[in-house]
Amino acid sequence: MTAENEIVVELLEDARKFSERHSTRDSLVRVLQVFKKNHSPKLWEIYEKTEEYLPSALGIVMAMEKGGFIEPENGFLKLTGKGKNLVDLVVPKAVDYRTMEDFRFGVKMPAELKRIEGEIRRISQELIMKDEFDQAPITADSVVLKAYHMISRGDIAGKSVVLLGDDDLMSIVLGLTSLPKEILVIDIDKDVAGIVEKYSKKLGIKVPMRAVVHDFRKPIPKNIRGKFDTFVTQPPDTVLGMLLFVSRGVELLKDEPGMVGYAGFTKTGCPQLGILDFWEKIVGMKLVISEVIPKFTVYPGIRTEIKEVEVPEFIDYPPKQFWYISDLIRLKTTKRSKSMFEGKTFEGDISDYRRDVLKYR
Amino acid sequence: MTAENEIVVELLEDARKFSERHSTRDSLVRVLQVFKKNHSPKLWEIYEKTEEYLPSALGIVMAMEKGGFIEPENGFLKLTGKGKNLVDLVVPKAVDYRTMEDFRFGVKMPAELKRIEGEIRRISQELIMKDEFDQAPITADSVVLKAYHMISRGDIAGKSVVLLGDDDLMSIVLGLTSLPKEILVIDIDKDVAGIVEKYSKKLGIKVPMRAVVHDFRKPIPKNIRGKFDTFVTQPPDTVLGMLLFVSRGVELLKDEPGMVGYAGFTKTGCPQLGILDFWEKIVGMKLVISEVIPKFTVYPGIRTEIKEVEVPEFIDYPPKQFWYISDLIRLKTTKRSKSMFEGKTFEGDISDYRRDVLKYR
Repeated sequence: MTAENEIVVELLEDARKFSERHSTRDSLVRVLQVFKKNHSPKLWEIYEKTEEYLPSALGIVMAMEKGGFIEPENGFLKLTGKGKNLVDLVVPKAVDYRTMEDFRFGVKMPAELKRIEGEIRRISQELIMKDEFDQAPITADSVVLKAYHMISRGDIAGKSVVLLGDDDLMSIVLGLTSLPKEILVIDIDKDVAGIVEKYSKKLGIKVPMRAVVHDFRKPIPKNIRGKFDTFVTQPPDTVLGMLLFVSRGVELLKDEPGMVGYAGFTKTGCPQLGILDFWEKIVGMKLVISEVIPKFTVYPGIRTEIKEVEVPEFIDYPPKQFWYISDLIRLKTTKRSKSMFEGKTFEGDISDYRRDVLKYR
Repeated sequence: MTAENEIVVELLEDARKFSERHSTRDSLVRVLQVFKKNHSPKLWEIYEKTEEYLPSALGIVMAMEKGGFIEPENGFLKLTGKGKNLVDLVVPKAVDYRTMEDFRFGVKMPAELKRIEGEIRRISQELIMKDEFDQAPITADSVVLKAYHMISRGDIAGKSVVLLGDDDLMSIVLGLTSLPKEILVIDIDKDVAGIVEKYSKKLGIKVPMRAVVHDFRKPIPKNIRGKFDTFVTQPPDTVLGMLLFVSRGVELLKDEPGMVGYAGFTKTGCPQLGILDFWEKIVGMKLVISEVIPKFTVYPGIRTEIKEVEVPEFIDYPPKQFWYISDLIRLKTTKRSKSMFEGKTFEGDISDYRRDVLKYR
């Protein structure tokens, strides 16, 4: 027990040096649980299976490399004999983590939606991702799955739906189902707005659809405030980014209880105290937390967040597999709900990932 | 539009008379969405598919009966011609609500757990449910599903697990998997404690298991405080009941970040502002909300909560189908977490459902 503790303490100290943050014994155990099952995972598998914060798990992996617990080989983090001993010492039993596939459970997608997925895949090739807008669309498969979930929660059919940002092309998916009463896309990027308008015509979508260009740091224009039943967003994964988009979403919803908002949120991209801050402010807006479904929405291999972290040589980079996955959050208004930036201009950077790294320690 | 509004306003006024609470247009639409798909649902189907609060949806159904929109027949709430017109007017499109089966998605339960389910079904017949303790075990199938979910989130293997209340016999399920490091059952009912101890021996469970009798209104005894990695509870569905059990759970967890608590919580059994109050206090304990999976844990047809509501003649009662379903909530501690009743005695009734009806309007 003492020997174990000594090794663990030393490893965590080293991890801290690399990640500039304190990793807990619990985090170490959760990382090592992945090694217990697969002696040579890639870094990306650790993120896919656990909820560890990016710098924290990376710090642990780097400390393991320095300590000779792993011997990286072509991006695989191969346990050494010393590493195997450590895993057996610290992790008594292997865990079959449920993966993202498992969480898409029971979703027997209607054939029509599968067809729409193909459409989205084609159209999305016309979009050029812009870093200045922190754009990063989720996979076509994820957009359709998210749409199906929202439909089957009764939040789309016959509803006025607003999309805060739409590089995912969710508006096209929803439009093609013919279910919403109307759809409004609000995006900072005129190219996104243009493609939405172009394809809503080209595909003969019958649902009334509009796309407007707007920067969410500015208040929602009066003529569209308080008009919608449902908002949907997949915002920047910073605490402020999330809060701003949810707050603007609430401004857009009708001022009555039971209106619904969907947001994607990624634990890997946010430190634990940042997630706590996020929930405190969500509840502060008097929103009810209706669902938090883990590992629901998948991003393609490359994600911008990794830029905030220096990736060592021995990591397989850029990743060729899915690893960055959002939880799907469903919020509901109460009669006391109030957005936190109501009518105010937001000052500050909404995609400052470094800020979260430093602020929430 | 005006004709529609008039009917809706009148219906909601009538509903209010029956339920002593204001139902929203949104609630009405969600109830009518069930009728759009199935012209003769039972009341229980409405609860199974929506998240409406018990008195609220019941009030709407009673107003529909009074208004001649439905003609009850053997417990089925059959739409009349007038009712069909209303549904077509208010609900433009049908919704295929995802049901509880859908939310148990992707769960390909290992054969061993299916075997354990049979064991639990047999043992549970020895338990006599006591109303004074607000006992109401979830189905054997739900206990095993919940166990499997916790296992595959990395929260059981090698962990010290504590169960706050165990008429569900979760301890036996976990014990039979041989995964936990140790299990402690705390229950107010000596019969529950007795059966757990009896079967842990009889079934040759190797995991160290203990069962103690304790009333959660009293502080957690010092010798077991701060000792566990994971707590699991399925508390009374009142706001205070939930909060007390979660708070005691936090007292039992080790005082470090990343420790995990699971609680079942039922939207049907709690008014919306009560759910908001619950989340405010959870976040106030500086807990991170990790998962809220809807419709996960099922109770047998009869539930005690219905006692607080007068059920009219035309409702099929007691229900013969599953309809009362808990969400599964996963909470995680941060370094700032603190239980809200730490060391304090709780004064008051934890199963006063009537209190929630009246308090949260």
